[in-house]
Amino acid sequence: MHVIMVHGSVETCCDKPFLETLQQAALAGYEARQGGLLDIVEKAVIMLEDSPLFNAGYGSVLNLDGEVEMDASIMDGVTGNCGAVGVIQDVKNPVSVARKVLEETDHVLLAGTGATKFARKMGYPGFNSVTDQQKASWEKAISLMSKGEKINFSAFTGLPKSCDTVGCVAFADGKTAAASSTGGSFLKLPGRIGDTPVFGGGIYASPYGAAVCTGRGEAFIEIAGASRALNFLANGLSAEEAAIEVIKALDIRGDVPGGILVVDSKGNAAAAHNSFQFPVALVVDGQVVKDFTPINIR
Amino acid sequence: MHVIMVHGSVETCCDKPFLETLQQAALAGYEARQGGLLDIVEKAVIMLEDSPLFNAGYGSVLNLDGEVEMDASIMDGVTGNCGAVGVIQDVKNPVSVARKVLEETDHVLLAGTGATKFARKMGYPGFNSVTDQQKASWEKAISLMSKGEKINFSAFTGLPKSCDTVGCVAFADGKTAAASSTGGSFLKLPGRIGDTPVFGGGIYASPYGAAVCTGRGEAFIEIAGASRALNFLANGLSAEEAAIEVIKALDIRGDVPGGILVVDSKGNAAAAHNSFQFPVALVVDGQVVKDFTPINIR
Repeated sequence: MHVIMVHGSVETCCDKPFLETLQQAALAGYEARQGGLLDIVEKAVIMLEDSPLFNAGYGSVLNLDGEVEMDASIMDGVTGNCGAVGVIQDVKNPVSVARKVLEETDHVLLAGTGATKFARKMGYPGFNSVTDQQKASWEKAISLMSKGEKINFSAFTGLPKSCDTVGCVAFADGKTAAASSTGGSFLKLPGRIGDTPVFGGGIYASPYGAAVCTGRGEAFIEIAGASRALNFLANGLSAEEAAIEVIKALDIRGDVPGGILVVDSKGNAAAAHNSFQFPVALVVDGQVVKDFTPINIR
Repeated sequence: MHVIMVHGSVETCCDKPFLETLQQAALAGYEARQGGLLDIVEKAVIMLEDSPLFNAGYGSVLNLDGEVEMDASIMDGVTGNCGAVGVIQDVKNPVSVARKVLEETDHVLLAGTGATKFARKMGYPGFNSVTDQQKASWEKAISLMSKGEKINFSAFTGLPKSCDTVGCVAFADGKTAAASSTGGSFLKLPGRIGDTPVFGGGIYASPYGAAVCTGRGEAFIEIAGASRALNFLANGLSAEEAAIEVIKALDIRGDVPGGILVVDSKGNAAAAHNSFQFPVALVVDGQVVKDFTPINIR
């Protein structure tokens, strides 16, 4: 059995184009299954990075300086091997560079200009991820901020929240993997790394299963969201219970939007969130599970 | 009761200058106790950053390009608030910048040029952390590598291993905190971030206690070492048992050197490692505990 689950951003609308792109990404992951779990999760995330609908890769939100800085990560639950990039610029698919960190270096995380240089060394050409829409959002926000106005993020980006991520967990033959990618939070300080490349925070995979998180990355780091989910699995909770408990744990950080995907070592998949919407697609053995709905514990 | 424990690098020699500097750092932390736990752990780590004996701040090892890139972090176990910097350059005390990330931003982790710019904005002037000794080590290593020779790290740095960190955990009134700082691994790829700013990996603090790790950072990230230690505490293990179990868990990553400090919410302190030496100093209520010895599970 192959189980592939992908997500967009919490509080992103669940309109047809979003859900269809998520389903296509999960199906593309399924088509890549011959290459193994890492191929599945990488391929699914590449599709979402390439879509301007999501805040990852092309179409990422801009930081305070008007630049795109992206984070991405990938982890193999069987071996524990993982790779990530932080605040990388000028590459089309950060998740593929993260995989190269896993496969081609002794390191786990490369960040900043070093990450971009590494991408070039691995053969990835320069790529401009800034869309006209994101540029216009940034210009409007900066203009308002210069007048002392408070920013309502939902008015600017087409992405109704300031923090967003795409991610994928996959299961086959008792094994799991995870991948994640993001442009981070709108108007973030240059150099800000969120939970996406922080293993244990926004992503984790182990013999117990795999988890990816989205929402306010800082909160997921502080509660160690992803490894917390897998600890719940290790302690005998179901995937659904583990997902719910992590979202509940966000409460100690205040009113924080968050969502999580969890798949366990038997292929049980669950998604939970505390926002008004959380676009998720689930594909089991190449078929979209039409009635799958994330648990809303709002 | 105040409990303050600091460590140098695993496999660093435990000669008098190392141990004395660690004791002075822990005592300096104790002197700063009026300001609270974050003041204690920050002050202790500053002392170790300022000493050229340790691979953190001044005297950090050089990366493959011959530059110093430093990681540091700090976490409050009571609030869960944390701050970190990755691959920061040209500052004297990365741990103080990490604390500013905690206190002055909505973020948790700033990396690369963005982190250095933030340090300037916070008023920290430029500072050259490169020592003549580290520069000479780098030049010799690069020269040998260019001739195709294999590098024996112990021959070059005065720091017998390629990966090293300093850290501190502290306890007072049922509460804990942690801080950590490192120059990372000798000849690392530019941009490499280790476990120090990865909360859950190389550092974590919660209502159950605090932990900091040192050794091969990539392995501590993969096993989520620090949060694993606190999960053991949550599951009823003692600080000593938790420390031992984390070092044992390193085994799945192969022959990896590692050390960990753990303090629980009652002030029980333990240190464990799997290397031939692990310099640690423990100060309780302003007194150095002379007979304290880390547990060696080698």
